[in-house]
Amino acid sequence: MRFKVKCKLQYTLKEQNTFIFNVAPLSNNSQKIIEEDFTTKPETTLEEFESKSGKRLHKAIVESGTFELDYSGVIETGLSIDANQNPGLIEPFNLPFHTFEYLYPSRYCESDKLERMASKEFFGKAQGFELVTYICNWINYNVEYLRGTTDTATSAFDTATEREGVCRDFAHLGIAFCRALGIPARFCSTYSCKLYPQDFHAFFEAFLGDKWYIFDPTRLAPQTGFIKIANGRDAADSSFANIFGNAIMEDMEINVEFIPSEDRQQPDYTTMPITFD
Amino acid sequence: MRFKVKCKLQYTLKEQNTFIFNVAPLSNNSQKIIEEDFTTKPETTLEEFESKSGKRLHKAIVESGTFELDYSGVIETGLSIDANQNPGLIEPFNLPFHTFEYLYPSRYCESDKLERMASKEFFGKAQGFELVTYICNWINYNVEYLRGTTDTATSAFDTATEREGVCRDFAHLGIAFCRALGIPARFCSTYSCKLYPQDFHAFFEAFLGDKWYIFDPTRLAPQTGFIKIANGRDAADSSFANIFGNAIMEDMEINVEFIPSEDRQQPDYTTMPITFD
Amino acid sequence: MRFKVKCKLQYTLKEQNTFIFNVAPLSNNSQKIIEEDFTTKPETTLEEFESKSGKRLHKAIVESGTFELDYSGVIETGLSIDANQNPGLIEPFNLPFHTFEYLYPSRYCESDKLERMASKEFFGKAQGFELVTYICNWINYNVEYLRGTTDTATSAFDTATEREGVCRDFAHLGIAFCRALGIPARFCSTYSCKLYPQDFHAFFEAFLGDKWYIFDPTRLAPQTGFIKIANGRDAADSSFANIFGNAIMEDMEINVEFIPSEDRQQPDYTTMPITFD
Amino acid sequence: MRFKVKCKLQYTLKEQNTFIFNVAPLSNNSQKIIEEDFTTKPETTLEEFESKSGKRLHKAIVESGTFELDYSGVIETGLSIDANQNPGLIEPFNLPFHTFEYLYPSRYCESDKLERMASKEFFGKAQGFELVTYICNWINYNVEYLRGTTDTATSAFDTATEREGVCRDFAHLGIAFCRALGIPARFCSTYSCKLYPQDFHAFFEAFLGDKWYIFDPTRLAPQTGFIKIANGRDAADSSFANIFGNAIMEDMEINVEFIPSEDRQQPDYTTMPITFD
Repeated sequence: MRFKVKCKLQYTLKEQNTFIFNVAPLSNNSQKIIEEDFTTKPETTLEEFESKSGKRLHKAIVESGTFELDYSGVIETGLSIDANQNPGLIEPFNLPFHTFEYLYPSRYCESDKLERMASKEFFGKAQGFELVTYICNWINYNVEYLRGTTDTATSAFDTATEREGVCRDFAHLGIAFCRALGIPARFCSTYSCKLYPQDFHAFFEAFLGDKWYIFDPTRLAPQTGFIKIANGRDAADSSFANIFGNAIMEDMEINVEFIPSEDRQQPDYTTMPITFD
Repeated sequence: MRFKVKCKLQYTLKEQNTFIFNVAPLSNNSQKIIEEDFTTKPETTLEEFESKSGKRLHKAIVESGTFELDYSGVIETGLSIDANQNPGLIEPFNLPFHTFEYLYPSRYCESDKLERMASKEFFGKAQGFELVTYICNWINYNVEYLRGTTDTATSAFDTATEREGVCRDFAHLGIAFCRALGIPARFCSTYSCKLYPQDFHAFFEAFLGDKWYIFDPTRLAPQTGFIKIANGRDAADSSFANIFGNAIMEDMEINVEFIPSEDRQQPDYTTMPITFD
Repeated sequence: MRFKVKCKLQYTLKEQNTFIFNVAPLSNNSQKIIEEDFTTKPETTLEEFESKSGKRLHKAIVESGTFELDYSGVIETGLSIDANQNPGLIEPFNLPFHTFEYLYPSRYCESDKLERMASKEFFGKAQGFELVTYICNWINYNVEYLRGTTDTATSAFDTATEREGVCRDFAHLGIAFCRALGIPARFCSTYSCKLYPQDFHAFFEAFLGDKWYIFDPTRLAPQTGFIKIANGRDAADSSFANIFGNAIMEDMEINVEFIPSEDRQQPDYTTMPITFD
Repeated sequence: MRFKVKCKLQYTLKEQNTFIFNVAPLSNNSQKIIEEDFTTKPETTLEEFESKSGKRLHKAIVESGTFELDYSGVIETGLSIDANQNPGLIEPFNLPFHTFEYLYPSRYCESDKLERMASKEFFGKAQGFELVTYICNWINYNVEYLRGTTDTATSAFDTATEREGVCRDFAHLGIAFCRALGIPARFCSTYSCKLYPQDFHAFFEAFLGDKWYIFDPTRLAPQTGFIKIANGRDAADSSFANIFGNAIMEDMEINVEFIPSEDRQQPDYTTMPITFD
């Protein structure tokens, strides 16, 4: 499917600042950048860099005053629905080495502290894709989606009891439960078609069978409308902007538009296993 | 019922220490001290004091060396089983003022942080005594009784996710859930007949109808074998010894013996509402 | 000194609610209520109750709609400056029993977790009143007074590292450090003359020599302008309103006016030991 | 310098287990493996894998019973003392992209929550290498090295106030403070000559100028006697063994022996900037 993505970020700076932006979607086999454009006001050099995990970062050194970054791109995503309706949990001895780092606890996903809870709530309830779906259902039922109740310090350990939060909190809790059960899981920041109000969104991926499958416990937008920006261990390494200095965000506007194609396929909700791989 | 209670505490001290012991059972309408004796080695003055909540505290100023406190007592408890099989939850506007302090969060019972969790897990499941029983069943099923996994810093917020602990952790979680649901609840330290191995024990009381009812989510000893030592908000104000200085505990021996009576009643487990009031 | 205190609280209620207000100043030897008046709109019965620690609580059962409580009072406070310029720390074996409950850790003052930090930062720096003053200076220097950065879940353990907060956070940290060092300390909610903007305020009291001395690490208002509302272990039992139901606060207005007297004494800052006792 | 390293790990297993060992030292320009040998009892296939960050991992699938891994190696380390005695802090806009992941908060290094504390304690105290040395001095003075007081859940946020722990806690706190101040910092697990008792050890590296410099706030062993095993964000991705199953460790023996050379250089403590780079 094809999407037109726009992202505008506006800041006021009291002094020189360094920004590392992470707003450009991933460019890989399953997600192609058809065209894209960066504009900055005032005009500023953007240095592009690719992280080990494939994130496309853009660095800008900006003088005091106001600063605006405008990104626009046309992206073709190749999400596929898996023929295998319940891709299995992999026995640990078969997990590929590259997935191990997504088994370790991280800043916002203290899977080590949630092992007994995960075991009590989820052990034996289902297997593989169905187990992770069960976890997402649990989160969707037990955690209330409420803006303004959590902040950048909130972690899965908090959400497990406080039971409120936004998309990143939902994803963190899903990741922590998966890791606690021996399933590699990673955080994904994303643009998201048909998300209201438009904003950056977050979901997570769990490694089942031999692929990373998409899960979004918020169910606020169709999964096939995701345009992935970054994979990470959690939100700590997937922020849309790292700022070294004291910038104040004045405005953020996100817009994702579906570009209809001849095959009439549309972004839609699905309960099927889907994957970017 | 009548019990013979013994408690021996032995310490080594490098310097002068002040001890505040709280090992003497409560003396009130429902619990009578038939006889009791304190011995200290070396011989030391014990100053008795009664706290606002009725705890019987004993202060000792002890020189460096070894110190031993031996308490023995014969206590008659008057636990009664309530005719009302499901004493009701009281509407907040009818709660007596003296119960309010047991609605507030405390050091080990952060009920304020567990409100959504308590609501998700327990709302509508039952009412009154049956609701608190349901909470105890939940704790007994979901939390594993494991020595050595928790310490004096562990609180209900931790146990809600870490799901392991000992009697004080079980009681703290029960108290926190009750307060989060608007039910006054307090911590009780106790001697406990038929507890193996013998040790100080903890349970909690919830205020329902017009009385404080006994709940023990560990189910490790018959409730009618309890000889209550203290009520408190949580373990922070119910320790068997506050020590001002650097004393090392060398030994602790607790022994509770049931003294059979003519009516042949014995300490036993019950699912009925029972109360010291 | 004499003050005119006004407090207006306005709520919207979707259903019947029970309020327990704690807005009436303490009435005791050092603080006399010259006159006072409660008005409610709509007219509602206020039931007065005095807690064990002397708090004057007022209960109102209120139907859905809007509700307003107006309190106004003329209060004479008898704060005295101590002749003894450095009232001493009391050895634990001399502490009166009634102060013990203020040595225990509580919901927002986890003194048990701050013992080493308190010892490293404060041991040997000063004694008695000067030590607690040193602690307040430390807090004033190291913690930034910032509205909106903390919430009702924030505790001294958080503030010890996060180093930001409002008056209640400052008081909690001071209390926790004192208790960690063996000094009984309690939380006080208060009206405060010359506090801008006008609001409820919080300070703490430490037990030194044989009295409770006043400390306010925020230094935002003159201590002799305090009109005390409540003593408690921490903010958990000193809230100006406990609400059982879903009331939304629409407005709060506090006003404290100094009533000049013939002796020309005025509320002022002091570094002397002062006490309500 | 040349070292002979031995590591013996012994487990009892109730069922089949998968182990991922991380006991083989890094093999790179500054650390050469002269010879090495792995033995397992019973004989088991070890599959070697290199992680993205260069860790040498060994996977073993082991049947129930006892299992022993014996590693022995001769390693030549090329730690160099920097001519530049105070390698500078790099301005963020000059940080190489590959260091960014070591600026983000991680499971045990919540640098985001320690920003104000780091700023209050360390801002303006020194620059570059001297600043990180100042941080290590602070940790060494303020945190007590105590075995058995912390566990695998303990993080820098805890240690910042609880002020006790072992080498991993010291390293985590150093890392968190550095990141909070904008200095990339990473966790290193290591063998360590002249560490008593012999055990796995941990230190941290901070990126200054254009290299990773070594810091060990415990000062329990000479830095030039380190033989590095792994770099990671923190201990979460630097464990010497990840175990999928229920293995009980029965024994661990570590031995590091210095092999004297003609140049008579010996492992020694230094306050100079040293680096593996």
